[in-house]
Amino acid sequence: MQKTYNFGSGPGMLPAEVLEIAREHVGLMELAHRSEAFMAILAQAETELRQLLDIPEHYRVLFLQGGASLQFAMAPLNLLGNQTRADYLNTGYWSHKAITEARRFCEVNTVAQGIRSVPEFSQWQFGNDSAYVHITPNETIAGLEFCWIPETRAPLVADMSSYLLSQPLEVDRFGLIYCGAQKNLGIAGLTLVIVREDLVGKHRPDTPSLLQYQTHVEQNSMANTPPTWAIYITSLMTSWLIQQGGLKAMAEANRQKAQAVYEAIDQSEGFYTNRVAQPNRSRVNIPFFLKDQRLEGLFLEQAMAAGLTQLKGHRSAGGIRASLYNAMPVEGAQTLAQFMKDFANKIG
Amino acid sequence: MQKTYNFGSGPGMLPAEVLEIAREHVGLMELAHRSEAFMAILAQAETELRQLLDIPEHYRVLFLQGGASLQFAMAPLNLLGNQTRADYLNTGYWSHKAITEARRFCEVNTVAQGIRSVPEFSQWQFGNDSAYVHITPNETIAGLEFCWIPETRAPLVADMSSYLLSQPLEVDRFGLIYCGAQKNLGIAGLTLVIVREDLVGKHRPDTPSLLQYQTHVEQNSMANTPPTWAIYITSLMTSWLIQQGGLKAMAEANRQKAQAVYEAIDQSEGFYTNRVAQPNRSRVNIPFFLKDQRLEGLFLEQAMAAGLTQLKGHRSAGGIRASLYNAMPVEGAQTLAQFMKDFANKIG
Repeated sequence: MQKTYNFGSGPGMLPAEVLEIAREHVGLMELAHRSEAFMAILAQAETELRQLLDIPEHYRVLFLQGGASLQFAMAPLNLLGNQTRADYLNTGYWSHKAITEARRFCEVNTVAQGIRSVPEFSQWQFGNDSAYVHITPNETIAGLEFCWIPETRAPLVADMSSYLLSQPLEVDRFGLIYCGAQKNLGIAGLTLVIVREDLVGKHRPDTPSLLQYQTHVEQNSMANTPPTWAIYITSLMTSWLIQQGGLKAMAEANRQKAQAVYEAIDQSEGFYTNRVAQPNRSRVNIPFFLKDQRLEGLFLEQAMAAGLTQLKGHRSAGGIRASLYNAMPVEGAQTLAQFMKDFANKIG
Repeated sequence: MQKTYNFGSGPGMLPAEVLEIAREHVGLMELAHRSEAFMAILAQAETELRQLLDIPEHYRVLFLQGGASLQFAMAPLNLLGNQTRADYLNTGYWSHKAITEARRFCEVNTVAQGIRSVPEFSQWQFGNDSAYVHITPNETIAGLEFCWIPETRAPLVADMSSYLLSQPLEVDRFGLIYCGAQKNLGIAGLTLVIVREDLVGKHRPDTPSLLQYQTHVEQNSMANTPPTWAIYITSLMTSWLIQQGGLKAMAEANRQKAQAVYEAIDQSEGFYTNRVAQPNRSRVNIPFFLKDQRLEGLFLEQAMAAGLTQLKGHRSAGGIRASLYNAMPVEGAQTLAQFMKDFANKIG
């Protein structure tokens, strides 16, 4: 049977092994959240995340709901304290969303912006009295990424949906990290938050209690019924990541996958193009365009027939996009690269 | 093989047929939320809910995250408008939680309170200038329920976790209905909101965008990635409910189940007691106590051995609690009732 590979940007592909275990354990959807069995699953997910990311003890790991988009509000509500300004780097669609939401709660100082290349750090204009600095290390839609961590005076906050767990990370350089689980960490409906302890408890007094990090820290992510099944899937993902060799192995696999696809683009003599500056090409979301846009439909159709699914670009960007999250094996990216070469040769 | 019945209060039991379909379709956890396949699932869940509950067209059905507890904040944030007061009926644990959260945003007028019996409507003291009236028709912990709908001047708001879909409902008597899905409607991580159109759009200006009903109405519950798998399970539940004959059939089954368990209590000559006033006994959450509290452990142990699981009472209440949501077959309640009689005869 032909293998299929899901290049969707999230909800994304899950490892076959994880799907198989989930299939055998659908009964766990009925599991009571206060049961010992569920508490063990929750504890395992946290322990393995701490192991994978080497999370220091003075950081808390929270399993929440609402997606990264709810964090666009929770970050300012929790971190502003008595301050009224925050710094944001604008690198595209998701940064812009975060900025728009933050403006409900504070004045936003845009330190720099760039959609196809990330401005050099020396050009960032920090505010004097900003409560924190917010970055989006990977923009899934335009496929823009930067892997260096800026050195900031104010706590660094990062939307790491699609980035977290793709490679090792110096967590202690950040004040707050958040991400939706549906990329590298499981399924839609679960949001992971990693927050430095001393930043917890500064929320605005009229913040809804479930939007206060403090509530979730005090209740160990059990302030109300958590998304038990989504957390179970994440616990399977963390175990799987450890079995695969952890984040160093993931980083190497992600490097190989990205290289295969970018090579297919760069060696196509303009048949395919990617518009992002070389140093900022995303390793995990690779958007590209066909020289003749009218061929997109045919490309997607033949790709689908070859078992390469969910390659359509974001509705705001058009074109093609290949998302290469951890669950995508190297051979999946290689199969796509070969398909791209064959398609270009046949049509071009 | 011995059948097992899960009497958990939520995440609760799912129908065997639903679990079986879910098992065959775990691959849908990878489904893109903007795909046609997922949009069809979402549309089906809404259409079937509208059919089951006969929801009028001028009500919107929203699929959200955060649980009923997040609605404790969203209700006042969205419905207060320019007003500063709201009416709340206090019938126990969950009402109290709703009141405590509402106090962050407005002055709360408690119209009446009662933990073991619901105060007569003639005794409710409404505020003159309240933006809405909030009720909790079923209190899952103490097992207190009232099925009549109060006639109020201000819009009626109801926390219907554990109540919705247990019997037919006159939706048009309400301004806002909300509930967690993990009782009668699916798994944890999904919150259902049914809101009258004219009440949408009155949120406080500094309300986080994902806490505004308007956002979700405008984006058809797709303002950000929704909990796709939880919505899929809910779509299986709505299909199952229709196959079972809809809410009239559910109401009859729930009546029979409750009757079986309450009879076992009432005919035990005091071996078992339920502390709720007769007219307010919950049909779906039945807490009871053993005359000799020291026998609770033995009761739970032998029940478990007989395939009757998750019967331990809420940690704040103690005792035993049997939750009889829609997925619990009549024979499950009858098996429990027989077990109770046998246990009492053997020990009493």
